[in-house]
Amino acid sequence: MITRQEDFSKWYLDTIQQADLMDYSPVRGSMIFKPDGYEMWEHIQTAFDKRFKEEGVRNAYFPMLIPEHFFAKEADHIEGFSPELPFVTEAGGEKLEEKLALRPTSETMIGDAYSRWIQSYRDLPLMLNQWANVFRWEKRTLPFLRTSEFLWQEGHTAHADAEEAKERTMRMLEIYKEVVEDVLAVPVFSGEKTPSERFAGAENTYSIEAMVQDGRAIQAGTSHFMGTRFAEAFDITYLNQDNEHVYAYTTSWGVSTRLIGTLIMMHGDDQGLIIPPAVAPRQVVLMPVGPWKKNPEILEKLKELQHQLHEAGIRTVLDDSDQSPGFKFNEWEMRGVPLRIEFGPRDLENGTVVLKARDVEDKHFVEIDQLVSAVEEELNAMQARLFERAKKMNEQHVYTNIDTLDELKEHIEEKRAAGERAGWVLAGWDGTEESEAKIQEETGFTTRHIPFEGMVEPKEKCIVTGKPAKYTVWIARAY
Amino acid sequence: MITRQEDFSKWYLDTIQQADLMDYSPVRGSMIFKPDGYEMWEHIQTAFDKRFKEEGVRNAYFPMLIPEHFFAKEADHIEGFSPELPFVTEAGGEKLEEKLALRPTSETMIGDAYSRWIQSYRDLPLMLNQWANVFRWEKRTLPFLRTSEFLWQEGHTAHADAEEAKERTMRMLEIYKEVVEDVLAVPVFSGEKTPSERFAGAENTYSIEAMVQDGRAIQAGTSHFMGTRFAEAFDITYLNQDNEHVYAYTTSWGVSTRLIGTLIMMHGDDQGLIIPPAVAPRQVVLMPVGPWKKNPEILEKLKELQHQLHEAGIRTVLDDSDQSPGFKFNEWEMRGVPLRIEFGPRDLENGTVVLKARDVEDKHFVEIDQLVSAVEEELNAMQARLFERAKKMNEQHVYTNIDTLDELKEHIEEKRAAGERAGWVLAGWDGTEESEAKIQEETGFTTRHIPFEGMVEPKEKCIVTGKPAKYTVWIARAY
Repeated sequence: MITRQEDFSKWYLDTIQQADLMDYSPVRGSMIFKPDGYEMWEHIQTAFDKRFKEEGVRNAYFPMLIPEHFFAKEADHIEGFSPELPFVTEAGGEKLEEKLALRPTSETMIGDAYSRWIQSYRDLPLMLNQWANVFRWEKRTLPFLRTSEFLWQEGHTAHADAEEAKERTMRMLEIYKEVVEDVLAVPVFSGEKTPSERFAGAENTYSIEAMVQDGRAIQAGTSHFMGTRFAEAFDITYLNQDNEHVYAYTTSWGVSTRLIGTLIMMHGDDQGLIIPPAVAPRQVVLMPVGPWKKNPEILEKLKELQHQLHEAGIRTVLDDSDQSPGFKFNEWEMRGVPLRIEFGPRDLENGTVVLKARDVEDKHFVEIDQLVSAVEEELNAMQARLFERAKKMNEQHVYTNIDTLDELKEHIEEKRAAGERAGWVLAGWDGTEESEAKIQEETGFTTRHIPFEGMVEPKEKCIVTGKPAKYTVWIARAY
Repeated sequence: MITRQEDFSKWYLDTIQQADLMDYSPVRGSMIFKPDGYEMWEHIQTAFDKRFKEEGVRNAYFPMLIPEHFFAKEADHIEGFSPELPFVTEAGGEKLEEKLALRPTSETMIGDAYSRWIQSYRDLPLMLNQWANVFRWEKRTLPFLRTSEFLWQEGHTAHADAEEAKERTMRMLEIYKEVVEDVLAVPVFSGEKTPSERFAGAENTYSIEAMVQDGRAIQAGTSHFMGTRFAEAFDITYLNQDNEHVYAYTTSWGVSTRLIGTLIMMHGDDQGLIIPPAVAPRQVVLMPVGPWKKNPEILEKLKELQHQLHEAGIRTVLDDSDQSPGFKFNEWEMRGVPLRIEFGPRDLENGTVVLKARDVEDKHFVEIDQLVSAVEEELNAMQARLFERAKKMNEQHVYTNIDTLDELKEHIEEKRAAGERAGWVLAGWDGTEESEAKIQEETGFTTRHIPFEGMVEPKEKCIVTGKPAKYTVWIARAY
């Protein structure tokens, strides 16, 4: 297998195929989520869904097909999405009177519904979420990270006033950060997107962004404050307590199956996948070793151990195939199973098993009668280790002392020549679109976002023009 | 509100709107699942998903868009589905080279994938399930029961031999029956579909069918044995233990959001919805009664009780609005909440609450300190009562002594004149398509299915021709 160092993109594509997470489909840019890939999504869904419900958000389901004229109601929205829309133009053997778009987001459909459902201040806040498939006809695609069809959740809320809507926007970003860090073990950076990177139609867009192992950025989740722009476009008004018709303030926020791609690029190594225990389809693989076939007690005992782990809510697989231990070790490492339990004749005698975590070299013995608690402990420890390792890697690849575009180009060139990652650079920015565009044209780096106050030491001068910096931004190559 | 007796269809449409389960969408034939409607689907999903996983079925996700030529691979399949397909013909501003259908089922897409994934007998059985939205461009639509887009699960399995595939087909039908009866409290009839009602491309189709309150039938779930027909169409072959390339045997099976419509039509009454506790978004509504505002302890105590119920995993809502008790009773009855808890000044004094189940007139007092167990008991009792009541209603509306088409017409006419339901009729059938078509033309009844052996007393003569009956079938008007 190719190493990450040799070719990170190829390593990624090889890894996800060999770990059996996905397959390509006959339709350009779409993919099949195979069970191991899909199950990670199920665990991610469960973690988010629980927290959404605790916040008082309820799930609903809105139609996939959206009349073309809906998009025209919000000018930025149609400009942002129309190049990416697939359209149904015929159905049931007849040409349709109006083309129907496959939703790129349900913003417009939900805006239309909210305009009917919201009449009085008593109807607010209205907070709904939807788990759904969405479409964006992308030219360049990459499994999990950018596909024509993907799975996501989209939350849409409406509020009586701006303050409450802004709080909701920020609260959902916090929840995203919490789940991505705690469950996916992926540390993220929070901040506000620059105007050019805002969601089409939003007043403010906030994002969490992850830095993966090749030093590039992945936008892992976004939360948008819409102000009254969608309310005005879709006539979402309500009668307030003073008996006046006024516009509601709305928000929306989403994370998608690109989180799967993110965690793979964050944690994998040259042996293949490393899956954080919290989202691993199988948390433990048990296997007999040594001349185990001579004594049926070994396999019996292993089955008993598997049962004990299962009863404790731990996801396991028992590999009693005829392959050699080396082959099996390799197979399950490639698939990223967090823990391996080896059990052979000597272990049977000693009342122990060998425990090995996927992310460290160390193997150690564990008393059989303490296996469940040892496994639970080790899974927790590994989850924490992966996060800490990722965090350390991130810290080692942020650069805060680059002040000019020439320095940036030099930095990128040096790193490239050394076969190292250029990472993320903290840059002063004068706030103009011209400067932002110039960074991208000349370096391939894009502005990721403006970190929240207090998170970084502000830069004084714009990296492009040398003028006083209006903002300090993270810039990096992005997926 | 209109009664079921006056106009069952209108009662149904009024009930689902007033209970806030759905809304119409601007696209013909599609609907919005509002939170209370969608949450029932979530509980249904949870019940099925757990059982599928216990069977060793894993979830996956396949692309929505299917190339047109895939449908042509299985002759019956394209004939069955092509009149109902919507097509994407343009995307990203360009006309597509090949039209892409919105999946009516993923049979073909999954057949194509299985042909790549299945190579050896070691790859079998392969058992996957998908939760997804599907499209069938229906001419006449009815919310939850027949819409252009709906939500469902589709399981697809491949096996080394016919016997195992048949067992799987029947096992999934059993699971369907179990969940629909135990969780939705809807009794169902099991049997095999006649050839004309088979799934497009199946060798055998089995169904569970429910008889709802107007006596009509709803096909509530189907399970198909495909034989090797899809394997031949999509080249799903494997190397068996004798080193021969042979075709796999496949099955598929599905239930959909029409289950929501089914349970509503089964349990509702003239006050509105009645939701079985197991799928109710809110299982208990608590409300203060009497001059409760004068003593803040009443509301405090109610909140404490709500908390206790919540801790016990019971879904509750507390209605402390200013509306009159009569208004609130009516509101929550309309929404079908299983239990109501009333609590006023006298209750505070006596240490009791009043408990009222949605489906019976009786109210009774419960000691406050036994509330949680009393509620749990009452929820279970109500779940059982709803099932028994439905079962009794079904038994009263099956007719087994109708032997000719004239008798059937007379029966239908008599019932119609009396404002009663024609119900289901057990009929002898000579097995010809002509006779089957004639029943429908002359009575509007269709064959529901052939009950499994031993479930009914076989009829001797065909209801149409008087010839010896080859099969005994249930016939009824169906949704």
